[in-house]
Amino acid sequence: MGFFSKDIKSLDDLFVHTLRDIYYAEKQIVKSLPDMVEKATNPMLREGFQKHLEESKGHVARVEQVFEMHGETAKTVNCPAIDGILAEANEVAGEVDDKQVLDAALIAAAQAVEHYEITRYGTLIEWAKQLGRDDCAEVLKQNLDEEKATDKKLTELAESKVNLQAAE
Amino acid sequence: MGFFSKDIKSLDDLFVHTLRDIYYAEKQIVKSLPDMVEKATNPMLREGFQKHLEESKGHVARVEQVFEMHGETAKTVNCPAIDGILAEANEVAGEVDDKQVLDAALIAAAQAVEHYEITRYGTLIEWAKQLGRDDCAEVLKQNLDEEKATDKKLTELAESKVNLQAAE
Repeated sequence: MGFFSKDIKSLDDLFVHTLRDIYYAEKQIVKSLPDMVEKATNPMLREGFQKHLEESKGHVARVEQVFEMHGETAKTVNCPAIDGILAEANEVAGEVDDKQVLDAALIAAAQAVEHYEITRYGTLIEWAKQLGRDDCAEVLKQNLDEEKATDKKLTELAESKVNLQAAE
Repeated sequence: MGFFSKDIKSLDDLFVHTLRDIYYAEKQIVKSLPDMVEKATNPMLREGFQKHLEESKGHVARVEQVFEMHGETAKTVNCPAIDGILAEANEVAGEVDDKQVLDAALIAAAQAVEHYEITRYGTLIEWAKQLGRDDCAEVLKQNLDEEKATDKKLTELAESKVNLQAAE
């Protein structure tokens, strides 16, 4: 972790710590998405993952912007949560022996990732406001809105196409 | 994992696998919540965690009911995602040196747990419907609704009380 024992003494410290957590998470997601693009069969799903890869690179840049606005050097802390979510995604994908079912599993995995980001950005935005940093909150809100939109699109794709094919 | 390599061959297999995942997750949550009750300072937060502990025991029972309805023995698979989320919650909590800030960190951690459950139940419900198991979907929906309600209550508590005190 980036802090020594009991080194989070204020809400500001906790905000910076959690910003480092999502910074690590976004970077891991950027690393993982090309593999998901490759594994996906449905063309709309592949395209969706590809688009989200580009978006996630933008999220990394926005988090870096928030570090700078807040007078902090951009750095990461370990984030066992996203590591666990991505490890589970890999494990499950490795056990699926059907392309259509794999697409359904990939969507579920991607939605677990989105929900992790949604909860962290939601928290960071509230803390930023509490700290009088509405400017940081606004930048983080742009990432949150894109994560929510991605989650919604994944649900629509699952319901309209992928789950139907997986159940055939 | 409960499956050997490439042993998920159908959407039904994937449904059962994911049911085992959330079964493990709910049991881990039941084990973790007493510690969160103990760490929380705000009386409303303590009470909220205590209530959610009782609810989570009910969620375990409902997941067991779905296993039975679906003709499967209730068992777990490892779930690196929830293990990671809970490990991170413990790590962060151990680094906070202020009771009010700790409450804010505990809420953020609990909301990460809720969002994991929300995404998994959402997926399971869609797959159950696709498999013609609206009866299973209905039982799972009861858990989903309670997770969403808990997440909402945590946000309200953070915004109305805990974050204000943490920022003092």
